[in-house]
Amino acid sequence: MEVQRVKLGDLIDRFGGHLIGSPDIEVCGIAPLVDAKDDQVSFLSNAKFRSEASSSIAAALILSEADDQAIGQIYTGARIVTPHPYVYFARAAQHFFDLNAPKEEFGVHPTAFVHASASVSPRASVGPHAVIEAGAVIEEGVVVRAGVVIGRGVVIGAGSLLHSNVTVYDYCEIGKRCILHAGAVIGADGFGFANEQGKWIKIPQTGRVLIGDDVEIGANTCIDRGALADTIIEEGVKLDNQIQIGHNCHIGAHTAMAGCVGVAGSAKIGKYCTFGGAAMIAGHLTIVDHVHISPGTLVPRSILEPGQYSGFYPMAKHAEWEKSAVILRNLSSLRDKLRHLEKSIKSFSEKSL
Amino acid sequence: MEVQRVKLGDLIDRFGGHLIGSPDIEVCGIAPLVDAKDDQVSFLSNAKFRSEASSSIAAALILSEADDQAIGQIYTGARIVTPHPYVYFARAAQHFFDLNAPKEEFGVHPTAFVHASASVSPRASVGPHAVIEAGAVIEEGVVVRAGVVIGRGVVIGAGSLLHSNVTVYDYCEIGKRCILHAGAVIGADGFGFANEQGKWIKIPQTGRVLIGDDVEIGANTCIDRGALADTIIEEGVKLDNQIQIGHNCHIGAHTAMAGCVGVAGSAKIGKYCTFGGAAMIAGHLTIVDHVHISPGTLVPRSILEPGQYSGFYPMAKHAEWEKSAVILRNLSSLRDKLRHLEKSIKSFSEKSL
Amino acid sequence: MEVQRVKLGDLIDRFGGHLIGSPDIEVCGIAPLVDAKDDQVSFLSNAKFRSEASSSIAAALILSEADDQAIGQIYTGARIVTPHPYVYFARAAQHFFDLNAPKEEFGVHPTAFVHASASVSPRASVGPHAVIEAGAVIEEGVVVRAGVVIGRGVVIGAGSLLHSNVTVYDYCEIGKRCILHAGAVIGADGFGFANEQGKWIKIPQTGRVLIGDDVEIGANTCIDRGALADTIIEEGVKLDNQIQIGHNCHIGAHTAMAGCVGVAGSAKIGKYCTFGGAAMIAGHLTIVDHVHISPGTLVPRSILEPGQYSGFYPMAKHAEWEKSAVILRNLSSLRDKLRHLEKSIKSFSEKSL
Repeated sequence: MEVQRVKLGDLIDRFGGHLIGSPDIEVCGIAPLVDAKDDQVSFLSNAKFRSEASSSIAAALILSEADDQAIGQIYTGARIVTPHPYVYFARAAQHFFDLNAPKEEFGVHPTAFVHASASVSPRASVGPHAVIEAGAVIEEGVVVRAGVVIGRGVVIGAGSLLHSNVTVYDYCEIGKRCILHAGAVIGADGFGFANEQGKWIKIPQTGRVLIGDDVEIGANTCIDRGALADTIIEEGVKLDNQIQIGHNCHIGAHTAMAGCVGVAGSAKIGKYCTFGGAAMIAGHLTIVDHVHISPGTLVPRSILEPGQYSGFYPMAKHAEWEKSAVILRNLSSLRDKLRHLEKSIKSFSEKSL
Repeated sequence: MEVQRVKLGDLIDRFGGHLIGSPDIEVCGIAPLVDAKDDQVSFLSNAKFRSEASSSIAAALILSEADDQAIGQIYTGARIVTPHPYVYFARAAQHFFDLNAPKEEFGVHPTAFVHASASVSPRASVGPHAVIEAGAVIEEGVVVRAGVVIGRGVVIGAGSLLHSNVTVYDYCEIGKRCILHAGAVIGADGFGFANEQGKWIKIPQTGRVLIGDDVEIGANTCIDRGALADTIIEEGVKLDNQIQIGHNCHIGAHTAMAGCVGVAGSAKIGKYCTFGGAAMIAGHLTIVDHVHISPGTLVPRSILEPGQYSGFYPMAKHAEWEKSAVILRNLSSLRDKLRHLEKSIKSFSEKSL
Repeated sequence: MEVQRVKLGDLIDRFGGHLIGSPDIEVCGIAPLVDAKDDQVSFLSNAKFRSEASSSIAAALILSEADDQAIGQIYTGARIVTPHPYVYFARAAQHFFDLNAPKEEFGVHPTAFVHASASVSPRASVGPHAVIEAGAVIEEGVVVRAGVVIGRGVVIGAGSLLHSNVTVYDYCEIGKRCILHAGAVIGADGFGFANEQGKWIKIPQTGRVLIGDDVEIGANTCIDRGALADTIIEEGVKLDNQIQIGHNCHIGAHTAMAGCVGVAGSAKIGKYCTFGGAAMIAGHLTIVDHVHISPGTLVPRSILEPGQYSGFYPMAKHAEWEKSAVILRNLSSLRDKLRHLEKSIKSFSEKSL
């Protein structure tokens, strides 16, 4: 397939920035500083790579004002000066990607099953062996890939992309321009049981999952439906792979979670938060906006002040770890000895006075 | 769809309890104290919500004897007095749910594939694009949703529900009234290899997974088949999402595990245990009945005494954590200094005597 | 189904070893020492089980020279003496397994969908409702089970086995003789976003996943495609279930990871490493060959020296843990008190001199 070429002037028209060089230069993609070819664009988003940028053979370089002043005279290609080169890179890369992506064909694949009462936009794409159950609504521009199962009464907002083998349970709603990666499960029952003399009596999970616009959900990530009320994921949330979100959680807009994070039920998490990989959040707590949790940290209680929070055991060579772990287990005896010493010292002091 | 109404007298007939009020009052569902409408039931399972209960407009309230004595004169609706209001709520909620759930249609969907040698009860439901391989047995009342794959010789016990895109490998057996959520994988090969000069030689995994009655398995949870013997999950076990159970594990009846728990191979876990989210259990160990593991805790060795066990790093503001983590890594030097001080003090004492 | 029988002499011809006993003895499988029947083989791979081996009724025993000298005169069956009995067991067990496994039928199941431009070897097997997209190549001997989705331009190397409901995204490549377990997702987008005033701008993930020969990938494990370059899994790597591998990672040959491990993006991991369950690896770091990480350990930085590394909180009874956790949170105050005491002692010493 021939790669689509783009004029630098066209990038400026779309994404802004100040161009130093000819707007008629044609480029066909974006690549890191050292890999970029002479018909590609590259970008400098960290001043420590200025020397690689200076010697890059890329046709054009996206960079900040400060970096342009430092290396603009050395680098020989065109320059696009912008306050946020990394954001500019992301937008331009997406543009090149869209230009060259295989076009989705509208329509329902003959092997797909669409219930008679479901509504699929004629401008949506439903892949092989996908299943759209009764009453579901698939809006314009939606792409449902192979093997996806959309339950009864589900709504998939315009422009969303569901990769293969995703499952969306009955009555959940997905916003516009969302991306759900393969194997994601939206709306499975929350983990709710009453205990009767040791046995677990199931509490039916009758809430839904409501997902806002522009949310991305990673492969094999699960978001449980609410018990009575709904589980809510606000717009712009980004969840990586293998994440577990319990029932009745509420995750604020533009919060991002790295892989393997777990959130227990009824956690209320603010906007603009970030969670490092494998962070684990207890249920029935509140985390305010702008909280950042380090990887591997268990959050056992509410966090009511923005900032970064951590709590993982520092790695060491096994023998060292073993030594400190033994002492850690007996930390109270260490403290008791210390207290005893303090008393001894005190009595000495008193005696010697 | 019209919501089915139920008389309070009918609830009493089914689930017991002492009714104060008219058995002819009709209700149509169950809701929390503050959300319940005047044709719904609510429940009080924690005395601290007595004031919300008193002012609830619910048509009826499920509550304990003690709570009834406290607020029975204030609350204006009917009351159902029972020793375990939360269990009663679970049962009643399930009843309302079943009444209003869309009825599953018996029969095999025309797009499903059922091998000629498989046996599917005429009173079972097999969804679109489901696959039932050779020799599998699907008993009465089973619901197999879209995209489920049932391997050769598998048995699915009466009344079980397999949500979309579940995979059950060859020869595994699922009990009666089980629920398997979307993406769950039952019977994949255990992780077994012999190491020959650095390379891994696969050990075929020829055991099965045997799952008892009334087990619930969460979305994307995996239970590996045994290496030579079987992996066994006893009746009433409840597993949340994203759990990993290694080969040859044996999990005792009515044990419950929250999301993201991992259990390494050949662990023998007792009955009535609970595991908090992301707890990790080493292999080849024994955990007795009635053990409770806190979230995020790694269990490295057998636990032979009932009780609660914990082991996760306490979360703190990042700067505080960093300070204590540095000291933790050198805990043995702290201890050595303490010992040195003890000696100094001792020598002082002796001198001063 | 009748079980295939094998002569001991045939095992020796295939896998070597020194046979003490008749090569014409026929056996039909392999089993642990105490379970083996008199027409099965067993193996002794740990000297502490010599007494069980001595009294085993197995038709033949695989054991080391040293163990043979210890018990060869007591045990009454045939013996296969080999330097690595456990490896021999693995190979022999695989042989029995292959002999008795149901033969895969070549050909594309009538319910599968294969795009006209895809190339499927006539000696490959494509199961019910599987999907092979445009331009994909399925080599000889490949088995694609039910519900698998193979994206555009994917290559599946000869002899590989893809279990049900696996998803392979566009343009990824899988080597020869690989095994991918159910629900595994290969090539989903890496987690890459630029942040613009709190909002996340997606960076298209245009690299691939390249998987070498003889790799095994567990159920529901995810390997993300690279952002610009590729994610690379070298030959012989073994990944257990529920693992997450971030974009642009490079995992060296014959490295093995137990269940629930997470590896953040751009980690470069050496050959012959092992990772215990739920180990979590930060991104943009290097781990050299022959590094072994204990379960539950978070690796926050590069490891440039082979050896074993650990870092998990030691489990204790809850009350004990709570006590030590409180002290741990205030470890710096403990240290400060110690320093204070040291000074006091020092001033005493000086005074008393």
